[in-house]
Amino acid sequence: MSEYILNLLPLHEGEREEFEAIAPGAVHVCAGRRTVTPEQLAQATVIFGWPRPKMMREAARLKWFQTMWAGTEEYAGMLPEGVLFTSSSGSNSRSVAEHMLTGLLAVCRRLPLYMDSQRAHVWKDEGPMKTILGGTVLVLGAGNVGSTFAGLCQGLGARTIGLKRTVTGPVEGFDQVRTMDELDSLLPQADVVALTLPHSPQTVRLMDEGRIARMKDDAVLISAGRGTVLDQDALVKAMTAGKLWGAALDVTDPEPLPPDSPLWNVPNLLLTPHVAGGMRLEITRRKCVEMAQENLRRYLAGEKLENLVR
Amino acid sequence: MSEYILNLLPLHEGEREEFEAIAPGAVHVCAGRRTVTPEQLAQATVIFGWPRPKMMREAARLKWFQTMWAGTEEYAGMLPEGVLFTSSSGSNSRSVAEHMLTGLLAVCRRLPLYMDSQRAHVWKDEGPMKTILGGTVLVLGAGNVGSTFAGLCQGLGARTIGLKRTVTGPVEGFDQVRTMDELDSLLPQADVVALTLPHSPQTVRLMDEGRIARMKDDAVLISAGRGTVLDQDALVKAMTAGKLWGAALDVTDPEPLPPDSPLWNVPNLLLTPHVAGGMRLEITRRKCVEMAQENLRRYLAGEKLENLVR
Repeated sequence: MSEYILNLLPLHEGEREEFEAIAPGAVHVCAGRRTVTPEQLAQATVIFGWPRPKMMREAARLKWFQTMWAGTEEYAGMLPEGVLFTSSSGSNSRSVAEHMLTGLLAVCRRLPLYMDSQRAHVWKDEGPMKTILGGTVLVLGAGNVGSTFAGLCQGLGARTIGLKRTVTGPVEGFDQVRTMDELDSLLPQADVVALTLPHSPQTVRLMDEGRIARMKDDAVLISAGRGTVLDQDALVKAMTAGKLWGAALDVTDPEPLPPDSPLWNVPNLLLTPHVAGGMRLEITRRKCVEMAQENLRRYLAGEKLENLVR
Repeated sequence: MSEYILNLLPLHEGEREEFEAIAPGAVHVCAGRRTVTPEQLAQATVIFGWPRPKMMREAARLKWFQTMWAGTEEYAGMLPEGVLFTSSSGSNSRSVAEHMLTGLLAVCRRLPLYMDSQRAHVWKDEGPMKTILGGTVLVLGAGNVGSTFAGLCQGLGARTIGLKRTVTGPVEGFDQVRTMDELDSLLPQADVVALTLPHSPQTVRLMDEGRIARMKDDAVLISAGRGTVLDQDALVKAMTAGKLWGAALDVTDPEPLPPDSPLWNVPNLLLTPHVAGGMRLEITRRKCVEMAQENLRRYLAGEKLENLVR
């Protein structure tokens, strides 16, 4: 029997035809998360996109599901045994990396202070600025996001060091890759420390009071990934006492950050509400489509799928 | 008679020795703008730095003066006939270019809106963002700043077009260099339009209502150089009506911008008070020192000086 591909990706004009060209013998049904019907789910042998997790129980013929996001937790336990499960891990790396770079440059040039002056209609010089040219950027986590961010920093003239649990060889974007147990000895060398780690028992509060203290007095801290990696109270305390040049955080713990958190008002600390990734750039959407197309080609050719979760 | 070098540059440790190594036979006197004495001025055959313009009248033996800045207007008419006059043009190009890039990325990711939310302690998603990856950056002015800014944009994956009065060949950082009379036809293609032009009768209000209207509805406008190049009222009117994705201006007309200007409050418009350049980065200071050293070497060897004003 032929494949029935239920495509829930946000497709643009011409993209349905791209899928049809890759799998001319398949049935292609394009729908949205809200418009998909129980009949379509019952027929589907392949699903691309972001269905509600409980819908997966209705997909009795399903052989392969590729989610639109990197995160896969919400589907854990919802997929029957034997169903191939792939993610779109890496699809938003450029978006997250560019957001991290934007935050880094913004605090280097004291934009949070200048924005406050702008809102007050005050023309005020805030003095010295900072460049990453010639500086050392230490990235905790050398996955897709860390590697892409490091590459952008290299392009602007920084030296980059990536930290991984296990070093197996060079990683694009990094001048050096070292193991996480060298963290304490490398922190005092870094002009920029960037957190791109996922949440795990090993990463919770990894960036604690002692490690913040090991950073250069005029270093910049960037946090993406998960907010639990950073001890926020320790950061507030250190920065309020004048430690660090600045910080840019896209993730906090908890999220949303409570209105009474002291984090909102730390000088030269830029806070964005976990918006570095997601589907905010067209290139992220297109990358998800391309990842689905590449895996569809592999699936039909009997090759190993990319980003296999299980 | 030997040279008497009055060095008013902000030198760091070891840098005096660098000058001495280049000119071992000269007298080297290091002083500040405020501590320099009439006797020192009377002796000086070479002056580096930023003396008060009227001091120059006391420099009876002066043969060569190199100012610390790119701008030379303040010394016009203060230097006797026959004195060589050089600038430090290009010393802060990287600083200005990095500031322009920072402003560009900041408005692409809607940081002005996010900073307002941060100050209000509100966790709010502002939706789609913009990347310069794959976009076209049109730079008006292909001098040191324009070229450096374009190079940074290329490094982030943009296509760059530079506009000059006369095209004599390729310019680093630009994929294409075109003449200024092609401006109107190129504006509708640009995702980013960056102004790096000096003030002159030809550049005043060059970016007027009609040219803003020719820009893409979701383009970004960046302004460095001089504020007179842009018709601010036209920009406010256009952006208030929803034209453009955003803008980042480091220069205005007049400066300081009056507190009642409507420019302060345009949504997703980032305003900084002419702080892109100056001596805000250590690399700018060091570059001024290196430019003085290179020209000193040339001066002693009888070679042509760089950045000759006259």
